[in-house]
Amino acid sequence: MRIVIDGMGGDNAPEEIVKGAADASKLIDHEICIVGRASQIEAELEKNGYAGNNIKVVNADDVITMEDSPVKAIRRKTDSSMVVGLTMVKEGKGDVFISGGNTGALVVGARMILGRIEGIDRPVLASIYPCLGGKPSLLVDAGASSEAKAHNLLEYGLMGSIYMEKVWGREKPKVGLVNLGVEESKGTSVTKDAYKKLHAAPLNFVGNVEARDIPVGVCEVIVCDGFVGNVILKLSEGLAWNILKLVKNQFMVNTRTKLAGLMVKPQLSSLKDEFDYAEYGGAPVLGVSGPVIKIHGSSNSVAVKNAIIKSIPYSQEKVVDIIKKSMLDLEEIIEKDEEE
Amino acid sequence: MRIVIDGMGGDNAPEEIVKGAADASKLIDHEICIVGRASQIEAELEKNGYAGNNIKVVNADDVITMEDSPVKAIRRKTDSSMVVGLTMVKEGKGDVFISGGNTGALVVGARMILGRIEGIDRPVLASIYPCLGGKPSLLVDAGASSEAKAHNLLEYGLMGSIYMEKVWGREKPKVGLVNLGVEESKGTSVTKDAYKKLHAAPLNFVGNVEARDIPVGVCEVIVCDGFVGNVILKLSEGLAWNILKLVKNQFMVNTRTKLAGLMVKPQLSSLKDEFDYAEYGGAPVLGVSGPVIKIHGSSNSVAVKNAIIKSIPYSQEKVVDIIKKSMLDLEEIIEKDEEE
Repeated sequence: MRIVIDGMGGDNAPEEIVKGAADASKLIDHEICIVGRASQIEAELEKNGYAGNNIKVVNADDVITMEDSPVKAIRRKTDSSMVVGLTMVKEGKGDVFISGGNTGALVVGARMILGRIEGIDRPVLASIYPCLGGKPSLLVDAGASSEAKAHNLLEYGLMGSIYMEKVWGREKPKVGLVNLGVEESKGTSVTKDAYKKLHAAPLNFVGNVEARDIPVGVCEVIVCDGFVGNVILKLSEGLAWNILKLVKNQFMVNTRTKLAGLMVKPQLSSLKDEFDYAEYGGAPVLGVSGPVIKIHGSSNSVAVKNAIIKSIPYSQEKVVDIIKKSMLDLEEIIEKDEEE
Repeated sequence: MRIVIDGMGGDNAPEEIVKGAADASKLIDHEICIVGRASQIEAELEKNGYAGNNIKVVNADDVITMEDSPVKAIRRKTDSSMVVGLTMVKEGKGDVFISGGNTGALVVGARMILGRIEGIDRPVLASIYPCLGGKPSLLVDAGASSEAKAHNLLEYGLMGSIYMEKVWGREKPKVGLVNLGVEESKGTSVTKDAYKKLHAAPLNFVGNVEARDIPVGVCEVIVCDGFVGNVILKLSEGLAWNILKLVKNQFMVNTRTKLAGLMVKPQLSSLKDEFDYAEYGGAPVLGVSGPVIKIHGSSNSVAVKNAIIKSIPYSQEKVVDIIKKSMLDLEEIIEKDEEE
């Protein structure tokens, strides 16, 4: 297979992208294709002492920036690394596209260039959510759309479940709906309706979940609208980071605590890794007709390398095809929703 | 003043309620009136060796349970400790009411018995949010209503600001709107509209805030709908608790880490206190014509004592009257909303 990566997307592009690709190329047999300003990318490859033959460079002169308006940028910047990369997947010249660029543009571009999967009302960004002392979950929607209807939440649950099964090897992933309480009767009219639909779908739906149980992995697919998803991701990040900082400060109080800090240093470092998003291989865009992965704009080469590795099962396990097929089974449930 | 407390509300009633009241009575000059089954409450007072004369017991034979439907319970259980206590405030026989009972029933009861403040569309529950290494903030809505219109969010900001100023002594409290990003253009149609209204109101509105900055006190009044508020409170609780558990586990790995744990024990204990909701004196119900405080169902005597102490400025600083007056200034902004 051929993995296409946006050489110009993100704060550390092209340096960290190229380094990550070079590191990944030593671990995998597949071809990696870096799209972007060829001269810059080739210079970086040289800097990294790359001498292999499974990295190719495809030139694209333009770059979509963080300030660009998504729809306009996709329409007008036809020679940007993002548009060129997505088009390669569309035309079968690539099997998956990875980018650390403008999130809105990537989701819009994936929808406009690759197209939605038939039956999917709204493609969505899903993010790996690191659980404390356990395996990570997937959060859908990670912030692509701030509002959602009941049938959107059903789609999120279905696509997330397939992704976790095929890419993360989870058997019958537990799907949970974020709500005010675990009882079926809780929440808004949208969550009540979504509960019924998720319950009726061929999923391992564990019902409503409360936010307090999310960090310990009460479910493997966390379903919510993008506003709530954004709050969950950012609050977890802010809180975890600041608590660890506070813990660290407690070791700086006096000589005795400083000594204690030295004694427990390896253990505390392993704790920090729990929250390291770079370890998880990026966020899939689900619901479009091709595998697309968003990585953090601030991704370092480790995050790039991990995303490249995780992109292989996303493409090879035919996640997109399985979502397409599963949507046929769901048609009836979704139609019921629209009649109501 | 006379502080009225529900002797039967919560998991540890009447034991912890009575103990907390007895402890508080030693610190304050005001009368505390415990409402509930008189024989049980008097037995507890005796058990605590109470010999003062500023605690009175008012008998109420019935109890509203956690399973009761709020509206029905308030209408039918007219001899319950909650209805009797709220009615005392209504009739001027009490100056504030505190309860650890059924939250829904307390909010509904406050609205039905005390009445809404004129101009307030929706009374709300506000919760103190402990910030890391700093002073706590107030979160409004803490889960009373899952959805909110723009003018509800404006009301939340106004009432929260007055409460923090008068009860917590904050000067011009910073009011922030929870949103997907800090830019004015971010979010749903509701948050965009709420932004404009909060901006136009006589408040120290600091604009949109992102969830990652909430734990470090980016604003002193956190404005959001009840669904998002519930997620913020429960996720923070679950995450903080589990991270500290994980930190603790790191000290149990081997003899060296156990020794380190002993050396840093006082510092880690002080960290735990940061997240102790019992220290903060309960959650005010805002927007009704009388001061009402909700305490956790699981409150111990310390939480009860603190709520009693915090109820004094809530009543004496005339928070309810100030909200009433401020609503007149807001009328124009709110009317604009309804025309749209």
